[in-house]
Amino acid sequence: MSTVPRARPAPLPPVTGAWRDGDPAGRRRWHTAGTPLPLEVGGELPGVRLAFETWGRLAPDRSNAVLVLHALTGDSHVAGPAGPGHPTPGWWDALVGPGRAVDTDRWFVVAPNALGGCQGSTGPASPRPGTDRAWGGAFPFLTQRDQVAAEAGLADALGIERWALVVGGSMGGMRAVEWAVSYPERVGALLLLATAASASAEQIAWAEIQLGAIRADPHWRGGDYHSAGRGPVDGLGLARRLAHVTYRAEAELQTRFGRSPQGGEDPWHGGRYQVGSYLDHHAEKLVRRFDAGSYVVLTEAMNAHDVGRGRGGIRSALAGVRAPTLVAGVDSDRLYPLSQQRELAALIPSADGARVVESPYGHDGFLIETEQVGRLAAELLR
Amino acid sequence: MSTVPRARPAPLPPVTGAWRDGDPAGRRRWHTAGTPLPLEVGGELPGVRLAFETWGRLAPDRSNAVLVLHALTGDSHVAGPAGPGHPTPGWWDALVGPGRAVDTDRWFVVAPNALGGCQGSTGPASPRPGTDRAWGGAFPFLTQRDQVAAEAGLADALGIERWALVVGGSMGGMRAVEWAVSYPERVGALLLLATAASASAEQIAWAEIQLGAIRADPHWRGGDYHSAGRGPVDGLGLARRLAHVTYRAEAELQTRFGRSPQGGEDPWHGGRYQVGSYLDHHAEKLVRRFDAGSYVVLTEAMNAHDVGRGRGGIRSALAGVRAPTLVAGVDSDRLYPLSQQRELAALIPSADGARVVESPYGHDGFLIETEQVGRLAAELLR
Repeated sequence: MSTVPRARPAPLPPVTGAWRDGDPAGRRRWHTAGTPLPLEVGGELPGVRLAFETWGRLAPDRSNAVLVLHALTGDSHVAGPAGPGHPTPGWWDALVGPGRAVDTDRWFVVAPNALGGCQGSTGPASPRPGTDRAWGGAFPFLTQRDQVAAEAGLADALGIERWALVVGGSMGGMRAVEWAVSYPERVGALLLLATAASASAEQIAWAEIQLGAIRADPHWRGGDYHSAGRGPVDGLGLARRLAHVTYRAEAELQTRFGRSPQGGEDPWHGGRYQVGSYLDHHAEKLVRRFDAGSYVVLTEAMNAHDVGRGRGGIRSALAGVRAPTLVAGVDSDRLYPLSQQRELAALIPSADGARVVESPYGHDGFLIETEQVGRLAAELLR
Repeated sequence: MSTVPRARPAPLPPVTGAWRDGDPAGRRRWHTAGTPLPLEVGGELPGVRLAFETWGRLAPDRSNAVLVLHALTGDSHVAGPAGPGHPTPGWWDALVGPGRAVDTDRWFVVAPNALGGCQGSTGPASPRPGTDRAWGGAFPFLTQRDQVAAEAGLADALGIERWALVVGGSMGGMRAVEWAVSYPERVGALLLLATAASASAEQIAWAEIQLGAIRADPHWRGGDYHSAGRGPVDGLGLARRLAHVTYRAEAELQTRFGRSPQGGEDPWHGGRYQVGSYLDHHAEKLVRRFDAGSYVVLTEAMNAHDVGRGRGGIRSALAGVRAPTLVAGVDSDRLYPLSQQRELAALIPSADGARVVESPYGHDGFLIETEQVGRLAAELLR
């Protein structure tokens, strides 16, 4: 079910920031679906491939599998060092590993790259079947349910009928709650972090501005830039700057940067403040590792997120969740405010009240506060 | 001291969104400084002209003058209907007028367009003296202190030695507090609304992203677009969308728009959500009435705002304010959070604690909650 393309020592391609066949595979493996994926918007997506990584060993009775679902710009590299194919260390390395809260000596951890993403799974930068070009702007509109359906195909292929735990934060939490509603019999426990039952007006607003910045970049070309010499890196960089501010908290930015100019620069003569340089840094990092087309597809899917759609509303949809569930938010998160996690906790019968992760880091707290998050995961895995 | 250019029935120019000589003047009058304005950054600005409007009559003893200072995209049109030269009604019409909280039967109200602005005062869209072109990208870097110095020149020309009250919100509040520190003997009372002693890291961050969006627009041309066929309206529109979200509050957006699609549009097929259409509307309105060059100059001046600069710090600077002062913030304001107004109130010896305007509208509450703001103004004018 998996093939590992031959590795070559190339940097990530600067045009798209997407992993491409032939790049170092690292720990990635692949699953390619045997049949096209029917899409919620209509039609179907052929040749669906998911990149994924695993840690630990699947028990003979297949009872120890944990599904970890990444956020918007995350990927399958949950744990482990940087190296060929993995430009950064695992994004939850402190949480997942031998002896960690999700102990890979005991649990078999699976982390797929989301469908529509750009780190090995099928997305806009992938070759469009039957052509010699990338999908680009022709890539179909996806929903979280489509992504979860693709992940269910991966679970089938791995022989996992039921996850001991499904965990995700932010966009990963959207998929996690869709897992619990779409496949209640396949989810043994559920950990939802800094996420929502549906995207709010403000989340949509921030997202639409980011999409507008990408699409206003002349190098966007309607999404068909993958064969061009340059992608919409300015637009994607602007989107990332905006997103990054929403991911953090006002007090933290003030404490770290205040009004200080960047070393040696003068904001009165074209130079930057430290906080501007900080945002530049995060923008530059993202455009080198992420494809703008995937950013658009995944962001539109997040805007479409509504676990109650076609299910008689959110209350009715969540009433069917039976798995032991913990819902947690970050006290300083202004992008996914606690009110959203409280709604989830109130409407999921098997959840108690929303837990609060204490953190100065805003939304990013769910990635950073691994000790508190680890305790929640351990509580469900006990 | 004032000349009124001949009116002609032309719409606001689409290239820059700036008022230009020859457009309908409306209630505007002008004051042109007789000498160049020395600038804090160094050098001087020649030919400084401020557009302003007045309401009421200056008392023979000149004791009844009130200075109203507008926010980033405001102008001199504080009160009065829309009409030629004034595409929208006054932005504080409910607050200023006969029988209103700032009663123009008793008070002589003066409202200048800020230096660097685009509604009649000298700014990047103004002709550069000695040339036949707009200043454009050559317009100098301004600070709030430069703007206040220009306004002091207007006060001199009007024969106003001391304002009975100086009032401003947001950027207008920055200028108001600079008035009280730079010219303590000229400020009889001070009303600071939804403003700060200095721009915070987060305010700078939001501003830098907006500046980046404008400068990334190929029509920006380094600021020298005023003779081109088109200005950076896409970039300015993106900046406005971002700013507008920061001006409002999450709960209000959720209540008004939720996840609803814009009528007849389908977000799964390229259509918009209502909240996206709402942001588009505000962007389109702004680019028709505002010059991107002014937006950049005024935003950079706001980033530079630090009432303590060169004065031994904020505490030391504010210690010199002797005028009876009220400081108020809006409970739902996340752009100028109450902590900033509490800092001002704590450090201005003549202020009591910060007052709280209750509003669901976020930062914009200082413009919208005219009844509560009116009570504060009336308290100082009693």
